[in-house]
Amino acid sequence: MAKKINKLKIRTSKKYGNIGDSPGMIHIDADAKKPLLTLYSYNSEEVQECDGRDFETILKQLDHCHTHTHWLQVNGLGEQRLIEQVGEHFNINRLVLEDIVNTHQRPKFDDYDTYFFATSRIITYNDDELSNCQISFIVKDNLIISFQEDYTDNFAMIVKRLISGKGLIRTAGPAYLCYAMMDTIFDMYFSLLSNLGDRLDDVEDRLYDNPDRSIMYDSQKIKRTMIMLRRAIWPERDKVNEMIRDDISLISADVKVFLRDAYDHCIQIIDMIESYQEITSSIIDVYLSIISNRMNEIMKVLTLISVIFMPITFIVGVFGMNFARQDPLTNKALPDNMPELYSPHGYTYCLVAMFVITIGQVLFFWKKGWFSRF
Amino acid sequence: MAKKINKLKIRTSKKYGNIGDSPGMIHIDADAKKPLLTLYSYNSEEVQECDGRDFETILKQLDHCHTHTHWLQVNGLGEQRLIEQVGEHFNINRLVLEDIVNTHQRPKFDDYDTYFFATSRIITYNDDELSNCQISFIVKDNLIISFQEDYTDNFAMIVKRLISGKGLIRTAGPAYLCYAMMDTIFDMYFSLLSNLGDRLDDVEDRLYDNPDRSIMYDSQKIKRTMIMLRRAIWPERDKVNEMIRDDISLISADVKVFLRDAYDHCIQIIDMIESYQEITSSIIDVYLSIISNRMNEIMKVLTLISVIFMPITFIVGVFGMNFARQDPLTNKALPDNMPELYSPHGYTYCLVAMFVITIGQVLFFWKKGWFSRF
Amino acid sequence: MAKKINKLKIRTSKKYGNIGDSPGMIHIDADAKKPLLTLYSYNSEEVQECDGRDFETILKQLDHCHTHTHWLQVNGLGEQRLIEQVGEHFNINRLVLEDIVNTHQRPKFDDYDTYFFATSRIITYNDDELSNCQISFIVKDNLIISFQEDYTDNFAMIVKRLISGKGLIRTAGPAYLCYAMMDTIFDMYFSLLSNLGDRLDDVEDRLYDNPDRSIMYDSQKIKRTMIMLRRAIWPERDKVNEMIRDDISLISADVKVFLRDAYDHCIQIIDMIESYQEITSSIIDVYLSIISNRMNEIMKVLTLISVIFMPITFIVGVFGMNFARQDPLTNKALPDNMPELYSPHGYTYCLVAMFVITIGQVLFFWKKGWFSRF
Amino acid sequence: MAKKINKLKIRTSKKYGNIGDSPGMIHIDADAKKPLLTLYSYNSEEVQECDGRDFETILKQLDHCHTHTHWLQVNGLGEQRLIEQVGEHFNINRLVLEDIVNTHQRPKFDDYDTYFFATSRIITYNDDELSNCQISFIVKDNLIISFQEDYTDNFAMIVKRLISGKGLIRTAGPAYLCYAMMDTIFDMYFSLLSNLGDRLDDVEDRLYDNPDRSIMYDSQKIKRTMIMLRRAIWPERDKVNEMIRDDISLISADVKVFLRDAYDHCIQIIDMIESYQEITSSIIDVYLSIISNRMNEIMKVLTLISVIFMPITFIVGVFGMNFARQDPLTNKALPDNMPELYSPHGYTYCLVAMFVITIGQVLFFWKKGWFSRF
Amino acid sequence: MAKKINKLKIRTSKKYGNIGDSPGMIHIDADAKKPLLTLYSYNSEEVQECDGRDFETILKQLDHCHTHTHWLQVNGLGEQRLIEQVGEHFNINRLVLEDIVNTHQRPKFDDYDTYFFATSRIITYNDDELSNCQISFIVKDNLIISFQEDYTDNFAMIVKRLISGKGLIRTAGPAYLCYAMMDTIFDMYFSLLSNLGDRLDDVEDRLYDNPDRSIMYDSQKIKRTMIMLRRAIWPERDKVNEMIRDDISLISADVKVFLRDAYDHCIQIIDMIESYQEITSSIIDVYLSIISNRMNEIMKVLTLISVIFMPITFIVGVFGMNFARQDPLTNKALPDNMPELYSPHGYTYCLVAMFVITIGQVLFFWKKGWFSRF
Repeated sequence: MAKKINKLKIRTSKKYGNIGDSPGMIHIDADAKKPLLTLYSYNSEEVQECDGRDFETILKQLDHCHTHTHWLQVNGLGEQRLIEQVGEHFNINRLVLEDIVNTHQRPKFDDYDTYFFATSRIITYNDDELSNCQISFIVKDNLIISFQEDYTDNFAMIVKRLISGKGLIRTAGPAYLCYAMMDTIFDMYFSLLSNLGDRLDDVEDRLYDNPDRSIMYDSQKIKRTMIMLRRAIWPERDKVNEMIRDDISLISADVKVFLRDAYDHCIQIIDMIESYQEITSSIIDVYLSIISNRMNEIMKVLTLISVIFMPITFIVGVFGMNFARQDPLTNKALPDNMPELYSPHGYTYCLVAMFVITIGQVLFFWKKGWFSRF
Repeated sequence: MAKKINKLKIRTSKKYGNIGDSPGMIHIDADAKKPLLTLYSYNSEEVQECDGRDFETILKQLDHCHTHTHWLQVNGLGEQRLIEQVGEHFNINRLVLEDIVNTHQRPKFDDYDTYFFATSRIITYNDDELSNCQISFIVKDNLIISFQEDYTDNFAMIVKRLISGKGLIRTAGPAYLCYAMMDTIFDMYFSLLSNLGDRLDDVEDRLYDNPDRSIMYDSQKIKRTMIMLRRAIWPERDKVNEMIRDDISLISADVKVFLRDAYDHCIQIIDMIESYQEITSSIIDVYLSIISNRMNEIMKVLTLISVIFMPITFIVGVFGMNFARQDPLTNKALPDNMPELYSPHGYTYCLVAMFVITIGQVLFFWKKGWFSRF
Repeated sequence: MAKKINKLKIRTSKKYGNIGDSPGMIHIDADAKKPLLTLYSYNSEEVQECDGRDFETILKQLDHCHTHTHWLQVNGLGEQRLIEQVGEHFNINRLVLEDIVNTHQRPKFDDYDTYFFATSRIITYNDDELSNCQISFIVKDNLIISFQEDYTDNFAMIVKRLISGKGLIRTAGPAYLCYAMMDTIFDMYFSLLSNLGDRLDDVEDRLYDNPDRSIMYDSQKIKRTMIMLRRAIWPERDKVNEMIRDDISLISADVKVFLRDAYDHCIQIIDMIESYQEITSSIIDVYLSIISNRMNEIMKVLTLISVIFMPITFIVGVFGMNFARQDPLTNKALPDNMPELYSPHGYTYCLVAMFVITIGQVLFFWKKGWFSRF
Repeated sequence: MAKKINKLKIRTSKKYGNIGDSPGMIHIDADAKKPLLTLYSYNSEEVQECDGRDFETILKQLDHCHTHTHWLQVNGLGEQRLIEQVGEHFNINRLVLEDIVNTHQRPKFDDYDTYFFATSRIITYNDDELSNCQISFIVKDNLIISFQEDYTDNFAMIVKRLISGKGLIRTAGPAYLCYAMMDTIFDMYFSLLSNLGDRLDDVEDRLYDNPDRSIMYDSQKIKRTMIMLRRAIWPERDKVNEMIRDDISLISADVKVFLRDAYDHCIQIIDMIESYQEITSSIIDVYLSIISNRMNEIMKVLTLISVIFMPITFIVGVFGMNFARQDPLTNKALPDNMPELYSPHGYTYCLVAMFVITIGQVLFFWKKGWFSRF
Repeated sequence: MAKKINKLKIRTSKKYGNIGDSPGMIHIDADAKKPLLTLYSYNSEEVQECDGRDFETILKQLDHCHTHTHWLQVNGLGEQRLIEQVGEHFNINRLVLEDIVNTHQRPKFDDYDTYFFATSRIITYNDDELSNCQISFIVKDNLIISFQEDYTDNFAMIVKRLISGKGLIRTAGPAYLCYAMMDTIFDMYFSLLSNLGDRLDDVEDRLYDNPDRSIMYDSQKIKRTMIMLRRAIWPERDKVNEMIRDDISLISADVKVFLRDAYDHCIQIIDMIESYQEITSSIIDVYLSIISNRMNEIMKVLTLISVIFMPITFIVGVFGMNFARQDPLTNKALPDNMPELYSPHGYTYCLVAMFVITIGQVLFFWKKGWFSRF
C-alpha cells in the first residue's frame, strides 16, 4: 500500500560549510557544475554576444566595448578560481562571493555603494518534483552579472527581447535588466501556482467522487509545496520593497516604477498562496469529516444487523432447548416443559412472531431515520 | 450521492501573460468583450450623454465640452487599439494600461501626479455562483474614465443621481464620482453579506433540525466565499487609506471627508466577514460534535442489544446441549447429565431466570444513564 | 430534541440603505420609534429639566438658558424632519446625521473642529437574548446631544448625579458628561461579563456532573456572545484612545485624566473577554475528550461481553450438535461421535470448563486494566 | 467520579462598583480587611520601625523624621476614612484611590508629576488554589506607600535587607524600593512556574505510565493557570517598559539600570509561560492520540473474537439442525438429510475442520499485523 | 510498553535565586564547575597562550602585553571570588556578573559605554539529549572575556584561525572575535537542524511503511526541540540586530558588515525551524488520519463478518428448533411443525439457500466498495 502513495519528501538543506569556518570562505560544492560564461554587450544600436569558458576572453570584450552595457551570465558555480577572479576584478566583497556560492540563501538585497547584490530563488516543477535553485545578481554602473547554479535557460525570452530591442530593455540600464529577470521569476511563480491550482482541483474532484486516503497525502504534499513557496516569496517581497524604498543610486526613478509593478505581482503571488493554503485546509477538513461519517455508516450497518438478528436468534435458541416432555429413564410425563413444541401450529406461530418482531424493528429504525443517510 | 452536494469550485486564476514577457505589454484575453463607450459630460447646469463605439466621436465631444467634467465609461476590454488610443491620448503609463487589461489585479491605488489610477473588484452572486470582475478608474483633472470587464450596469443609480443633479455629485469633481462608485461597490458587499448571512442562518437551522453531511459542504462553501471576499476587501481598505492619507492634489479635503466615511464602511465589511467566519467555524465544530455524539448513540444501541441478548442466548444454548440421560448403545442411565431438562418445571424456571436477568441488566444500564440520552 | 436546545441565532445586520444611494442620505427605518426629547440645562447652581416632543420648545429653552450647559436627549430616531432640524440648527455634517440614523455603526470618534461626534454600542441581555443598540453623541461647546434608538433609560444614574450635583458632573463641561455616559456603558459590559461568567460556571458544573450535548451548544452560544462583545469593545478602545491622544479643544486635560481611566476599564473588559474565550475553548476541548472517553467505555463493555460470551456460546453449540451415536436407519453404532455426551459426568465437566474459561478471561482483562476505568 | 477530579474553577471577577457610579468613588468591599499600618523611616545610618492602626501616629513620625526616607505599608484596605486621609494628606488623585481600593486592576503605571502610581498582582499558590491579590505603590520624593489587600508578609526579605543595610537599598531612594518589591514579585512568578513545571512533569509521567482522563483535566487546569499568569505578566512588561522609557523625574538613571534587569526577568517569565503552554498542548495532543489508539485496540480485540468465533459457531449451528434421517410419522427414510451426522468419524472431522479454520484465521490476522500492537 | 517509548523530558528551569534576594547577588550553583582560565594575547605578528587557574598570572600577562589584544576564556563558573575579581578589576556592573553566573539568561546584548555584554545559548545534541548551556561575552577596548558553563571546547576552530592568522581575525579587534564566536554558534544550529531534518525524514519513512504510535511520540519530541530552538534563536536575532543598529563605539563599520551576514544566517535558521515545525504538524495530521482510517478498516472487517454470519446463523438456529412432529405423550401427529425437516432434500436446500444468501451479501458489499480499500 505504501508504494502507491506519493511520499512527502523533506529536502533537508545541506550542512552550511564547516562549524567555525572563517566568514567569506568560498566552499565549492563537490557536485557543482563547471561554469559557462556568456556575455551580452549592448547599447541602443546593437547587441554583441560572446561565449566562452575563459574569463580573459570576457575581460577583453568588456574592455573592447567599454561604452556598452554588459550582461555577464555565469551558469554553473563549480570553479573557485573563476568566482575569485570575478570578485577581484570587479572588487566584490568576499561575503557576497560566499553568498553566491553557498546556494541556500534566502532572497535578499544588499547595497554596497558602487554595486548592489541581490539573490532570488527559482522554483520549478519537473516530474512531480520541485527544484529550487538560486540566482544571484551583481549590478554595477554599466554591468550586470547573473550567477546561476545550473544551465537551465530561464531567461531566453529576455535575450530575445534584448536582441529584438523592443521596449526599454536596451536603454534603461542594468538595473532594468535585473528587474526584468526578477519579473520573469515571478511569472514562473504564477505558472507554478496555476499548475498547483489544477492539482487542487483534481484532489477536490476525487474528494467528491471517490474519497480515499490519497486525498490526505496529496493535500499534505500541496500544503508543503505551499510552505516552500511562501518561504521563498516572502523575502522577495521585502527585497523588492527595499529596492524601491532605499535611496540607491543605481536604481533610477523610472526603474522604480517597474519595481512597484513587480511588488504588486509579488503581493498577488502571496495572496494566491494564502488562498490555496486555506483551500487545502478546507479539503482536509472535509476529508476528515467524510471519514467520520463513513465510520458512522459502517457502525449503523453493524448495529442494524445485530439489533435485528440477535432477538430472533434468541427465540430460535429457546425452541432449540431440550427440556423433555417425558423422562426417558422413568417415562414420567412432564407436560409443563415446552408445551409450545407440541402445539399443532407452534412452528407457524413462532415464524410469524419472529417476522412481526423484525418488521417492527425495521419500522422503528426507519422512523428514527437510520436508513435515511445510506 | 456526490451529485446532490454542491461542489466547492476553485477558480484558478488564469495564467498571467507569458513568462518573460515585456512589462507593459497589453494582452487582450481571447474571450474579452468588445468595448462599449459612453461619455457623460456634465457641469452644475446640465448632463450630456454620448454613446458610441468610436473613440473619435468621444474625443470630439470632449473637445466640444472642454469646460465640462467628463465621465467616460469603457465597458468591455476586448480591443487593444482602443486601450492604446486611450493611453496615448491621455498620456497614461503603459503599466497602468497593462493593469487595466489584465483583470486579476488586487484593488490598488497609484498616484501619477497628473492623474491617479485605482482598481476595485466587483463581487456579485448569481445562481449560486460568485463572479468577481475588475473595475479600474483613471481620474484626471476634469475627467474620470472607468474600465469594466463586462456590460453589467452596476452604476445605474449614480447615472440617475448625476442626471437628477441632487447632492454634490455634479459639482464635487471627478474624484467625488470615483468615491461614489467605490461606495456603490461597498454597498454591493453589504448586500452580498446579507445574502450570505441568510444562508448561514439556513445552514444553522438544518444543523438543529436535520444535521446531515450537506452542512459540512455548505459551511465550507460559505467559508471559501468569505476567504474570497476577505482577499478582495482587505486591499480596498489600504487603498482608501492611501487616498485619505497621501497628499494627492486631485482629491480635495471635501472628498476626503467622504472617503473617511467609505473607510468606515470598509472596516465594517471586514468586521462582518470576520464575524461570519467565526460563526462558520462554530457551526462546523457543532456539526463534528454531533457526528461524534451520534456515533456514541449508535454504539450504545449496539452494546445494549449485545449485552442483553448474549447472556440469555448463552443460557438457551446450554439447555440445547445434547448430553444424554441414557446411552442409546448401552442403555446405561446417566442421571447426572442435565437433570434440569427432566425437572417438571425446568422450562418455566428457565424462562423466569432469563426474564429476571434481562430486567436486571436493563435496570443496571438505566441507572448508569445509558437510556437518558436517546 | 431540537426544541430543548437553545438555538444559536445569527442576527444578520439589516441591509445598509440601497446600493448606490447618495452618501449623507437619511433613511428612517420603518419600525424606528418616534423621538422623545428631554433637555437638561444646568450650571453649578441648578438643573432645569424640559420634556417635549417639540423641537421648538427645546430651542426656546436653549435660548432662554444660553449660559447654561445643555444635555439634549433624543430617544427614538423615527422622525426624519427632527434629525434634519437638529442637523441644520447645530450645523452638523450630513454624514454624521446618516451615521446617527443608520444604527449599525461601529463605535467611532470623529472630530469636526466646532463639535465632535462619537458612537457607542449598548449591549444588554434580556431573557436569554442579547440586544445591541446604538448611542451617538454630538458634543459642542456647551451642549451635548445624545441619540438613542429606543426609550430604555440607561442613564438614570447620571441624571441623578446631575441633580444631586455631586462630583465634577455639573462643572466639567459636556465632554465630561460624554465621558460619564461612556463609563456607564463600560459598567454595563462588566455587569454583562459577570453574568456570562456565571453561565460559564454553570456550564462547567454540568461538564463534571452530567456532561451532555447541551454543553456544546451552550459553550458555542457563549462563544458567539463573546465574539459579538469583542467586536463591540475593540473599536471602543481605539475611540477612547483617539479622544486621549488627539489634540481636541473640546476635551480638556482634566477630562483626559478620566478618559485614561475609562481606557483602563476598556482594556480590562477586553482582557476578561479574552480570558472567557480561552476558558470556553478549554470547556469544549474537555467535552470532546469526554465524548471520546465515553465511546471507549461503551466499546469496552461491548467487547468484554462479546469476549466472555462468544467462546462459551460456541462450546454449548458444540454439544448441541446432533452427531448420532447410532444410525437410526441401519442402527449401526457410531461410538466415536460425541462420546462426551454419554459420559456420566460430561455435563458437569462441561459447566465447570465454561466457568473456568470465563473466570480466566475476566482475570485476564482485569489485569490488563479494562475494569479500572469504569 | 466527578468527586475525584479536580474541578477547573472560574473565578468570575466581582462586579465593578455599580453601573453609572461617579468615577473616583471609593467602594470598600464588605469583606475587606481592617488596615494595618507599618512605617519604616530610614536613612543611610538607621532604620526606625513604627507600627500602629492610627494614621495620626504615622503622621507624627513622618514629621519627626522629615529628612528620612519613608516606607508606609498599608496591609488591608477595609477603612474608607483611612484611604481618604492618605489621599488628602499626600494630595493623591481620587481615581488613584479608587484603583487602590478596587482590587481588580491590571498592572499599570501612571505618572502624576509629584508622584507616580503603580500596581502589580501577586499570584500565590496555596493548597492547589491560586490566589491573586493586588499590591499598589505610591512613590513620592522621599516616601513610598504600599497598599496590599491582605496581611501576607510578602516583603519580609526586603525589610531584612533594609535593616541589614546591605546594597543600595537604603541610599537609592523610594523608586529603588519600589523596584525591589517588583523584583520580589517576579521572583514569586519564577517560583510558581517552577512549581507548575513539576506538575507538568508529573502529568507527563502519568501520560506514559497510566494515561487516564485525569490527564485531560490536569492539563486543562495547568493551561488555565498559564492563561491567568500570562494575563498578569503581560501588562507588567508594559509597565516596566514605561518606567524605563518615559522621562520620570522620580526614577533616576541608576534605578533604570535595575529596571532594565527586571524587564529581562519579565521577558524570561513570559518566555517560560509560552513554552509551558506549548508543552501543555503537546501533552493534550498525545493524550488524545492515546485515546484513539486505545479505541483501535479495543476494536481489534472485539473484531478478532468475532471473526474467530462467528464462523465456527455457525458450523456447530449447522450440525445442531434437526433435519431428520427418518420421518417419525411415516418412518420413511431420508438418507440425504445430514449424512455427516451418521458418518463414523463425522464428529472428529468436524472438530478438526473448526480447528483448522481457527488457526488459519489467527495466522491471517497475524500476518496483517493485528497482533503486533497489543 | 512505556519503556520502549522515548519520553519527552521537560527540563524545568531551576529556581532563580531566592525570592526577595538583592539584585546583583552572585549565586554560585552547587554543582558548577571550577573555572579554567586561558588567555590568548595576540597582535598581527604573534599569538601568546597562557593557561592557569590563577587570576594573578592572567593579570601579569595582561600587563606584560598591554599593547596586544586579549581573549580571556573562563570555562566553568564555580568560583565566586574569581567572578568578583574579574568584576572589580575590569569594572563590570554587578548585574552583569549576576547574569554571567545565573545560566538561564535569554540571549541579550547590553551596552555599557566602556564595554558591552552579550550572552548566547549553545545548544548541542548528545545521545538523544539536548543540552543547552550559556556563553557570555564581555568586550572591552582591547579585550574580550568569554564565560562558559562547562569545559566543552566549542571554539577550537577559532583558536586555530587565530594561530594561523588567516583572515581578519587578528587585526579586526575583539568585537570581530565576538562575532566569530557568535557565527560559530550559528553554525552549530545549522548542524543541529540538519540532524533534526534527518530524524524527521526517518519519522516520515516510518509513517508510510509501518505507522505505529512511536510516530506521535517522536514527532512531539522533535516539536519540543523546535520550540526550544526557536526560543533560543529568536532573541539572538534581536541581539544581532541591536548590535548592528545601535551606535556602539566598540563595533566598527567593518565588523557590522559581518554582523549583517550573521543576521542573515540567523533569519535563515528561524526560517528552517518554522518549516520543520510545519512539516512536523503535517506528519502528525497524517498520522491521526491514518489512525482514523485504520479504525474504519477494523470496523469494516467486524461489520462484514457480522453481516455475513448473523443471518445464516439465524437460519441454522431455526432448523435447530425442536418443534415436534409427534407428541411423545399422546403420540398425536403434528404434521405442520417443521415439515422442512422431513423433506427428503431439506438439508441440501437449506445449505444452498445459505450459500446464496452469503454470496448475495458479499456481492452487495463488493458493489458498495467495502472491499476496495483493504
